[in-house]
Amino acid sequence: MEFLSERAKRLTPYTAGEQPKDARYIKLNTNENPYPPTPELSGAIREAAAGLPLYPDPDASALRAAIAKAENIGPDCVFCGNGSDEVLSLTFCAFFDAVLPLLFPDITYSFYPVFAGFYGIPVQTVPLNRDFEIDVADYFRPAGGVIFPNPNAPTGIFLDPGEIRRLLEYHAGRVVAVDEAYIAFGGRSVAGLIRRYPNLLVIRTFSKSHSLAGLRVGYALGQPHLVAGLNRVKNSFNSYPVDRIAAAAAAAAVSDAAYYAGIDGKIAETRGRFSRGLEKLGFTVLPSKANFVFASHPRVPGATLFAKLRENGILVRWFNQPRIRNFLRISIGTDENMEHVLDVLKNFVR
Amino acid sequence: MEFLSERAKRLTPYTAGEQPKDARYIKLNTNENPYPPTPELSGAIREAAAGLPLYPDPDASALRAAIAKAENIGPDCVFCGNGSDEVLSLTFCAFFDAVLPLLFPDITYSFYPVFAGFYGIPVQTVPLNRDFEIDVADYFRPAGGVIFPNPNAPTGIFLDPGEIRRLLEYHAGRVVAVDEAYIAFGGRSVAGLIRRYPNLLVIRTFSKSHSLAGLRVGYALGQPHLVAGLNRVKNSFNSYPVDRIAAAAAAAAVSDAAYYAGIDGKIAETRGRFSRGLEKLGFTVLPSKANFVFASHPRVPGATLFAKLRENGILVRWFNQPRIRNFLRISIGTDENMEHVLDVLKNFVR
Repeated sequence: MEFLSERAKRLTPYTAGEQPKDARYIKLNTNENPYPPTPELSGAIREAAAGLPLYPDPDASALRAAIAKAENIGPDCVFCGNGSDEVLSLTFCAFFDAVLPLLFPDITYSFYPVFAGFYGIPVQTVPLNRDFEIDVADYFRPAGGVIFPNPNAPTGIFLDPGEIRRLLEYHAGRVVAVDEAYIAFGGRSVAGLIRRYPNLLVIRTFSKSHSLAGLRVGYALGQPHLVAGLNRVKNSFNSYPVDRIAAAAAAAAVSDAAYYAGIDGKIAETRGRFSRGLEKLGFTVLPSKANFVFASHPRVPGATLFAKLRENGILVRWFNQPRIRNFLRISIGTDENMEHVLDVLKNFVR
Repeated sequence: MEFLSERAKRLTPYTAGEQPKDARYIKLNTNENPYPPTPELSGAIREAAAGLPLYPDPDASALRAAIAKAENIGPDCVFCGNGSDEVLSLTFCAFFDAVLPLLFPDITYSFYPVFAGFYGIPVQTVPLNRDFEIDVADYFRPAGGVIFPNPNAPTGIFLDPGEIRRLLEYHAGRVVAVDEAYIAFGGRSVAGLIRRYPNLLVIRTFSKSHSLAGLRVGYALGQPHLVAGLNRVKNSFNSYPVDRIAAAAAAAAVSDAAYYAGIDGKIAETRGRFSRGLEKLGFTVLPSKANFVFASHPRVPGATLFAKLRENGILVRWFNQPRIRNFLRISIGTDENMEHVLDVLKNFVR
């Protein structure tokens, strides 16, 4: 700890899912997409590489235009960042105040408390109901803002846009951020509501649905004043625009909606088959609209299943925390991957 | 300002050099390299693209190994980030405390005060001497740390490593960060001193010397405890590893030292010719070891020259601040670019 500032000593490093460097594992622990990105990508990357000596466009105009076109909104309603984690961090800084608490579910994306802690934002976690669902009535209380993923992670459960409208109306004076990292796998986006709700910010990533976790590109959709707020914060202390290749690749991806509807639809189908397979083995599987399932077994503890799968070359995610200690989060890979997982699990749950 | 947090309202956005979206300008305002990156890059990028569905290695191990090999040090002495701006930000957070002031020159990289402000680090700026040089004796006072670029920006003036050793010895209990963004254009690095000085952190970027401004990759060299400090901070609130393509491209670049010695040497030669040309026109040119020169004219104000060059399709940088208001910072492009600049300037300084 020599030379470390007091500030740095107080910090608690976050633990992400393992990224093994060899290929010995079937990797179902970080919700990556098992299919390659659109074939349009390679041409876009080659073209962008020619411009590498020059700094990127700080406004990512071409990428924002491509997203705006795909979403049928104005480019001034789009903000781009280096992965949705960066967009989330800027969102916390720009919109969530140090007075009233920010509300989010007790079981949700583990980075929310990290960002809140970093900016000194008070937090009130709101328990999911007994079925692990978000009940919006629980959020009807004074707050400095609301954030949650839809579908939620790691549960995979989708919240109906009608319920989100109730939240937006109750918290009309505060930003309600809907983190749609997993929206492409069967949910319905609330992006169409940004015209009506000046307090709605929708956050997305190319990492999962668009097979681009290796690049880190994310974005936010909201009315221009919210985009301006994110830009204000970004330009105050963070000068890392989306790089030229990442921006070009993401623009090519968002422009090939048909390809991604194909692969993401296939993942949703695999999820259905895999969920039924797990249920046959006695698992309880939460109803997922994401590219993962969250499942527990009545007899075998989550920690045991996690360890057994790992021994058998399969990485999944296990969270050692209240209420969900018996669950595994299993990303959806190819059909072949998931059949193999079922075959391995058979040996431990009989 | 609707919905904006009090925190965000207080921030002052930074102004970067213009990035025009058309090609109407000869762009000599952001110190980009006029030559393409090594031809080895395209194969490396193509190979990395195949891995895009998976998250990047959070430790950038392959890139760190390539840098370590080039520098003849251990990979545990290398930290990689998304551009040296990110590495700088993490450095401020990890090592500069909120008690004693951080020292840096009055005329230097304009992002230092931004980072200090963001983390609440008190600052004492130390005036450059009359010749715009860093005089290390001026830094012999109690401090929470020291940071400066070498060569300094925007002056381009190089500080001898022997002087830096005096600083490292006086401030033995504090981190002295040497920002070597421009070291490849004629200066001598202090990277070889990290073995001897546990408080030395050297920060570099691929943006200028390696023609990769479009990607944003930077790194720090220091003893393992300093690298551990940077990792601690990074993993506490920032989960944006260097992306797969950027890491592969940077590794290919750092492995082709001969190519870059060639283009960066050519830039140093062009700088010499251009400086002599400016002097013939009556300019005072500070002795630069960077890929830019900092020059003023005894009769024509900097603001006028800046505007005239812009009218003639040449973008340079002018800083509206005390002591340097009459200077222009002109990046070194190709010989052809710089001859054109001299031709244009002739018309305004006679």
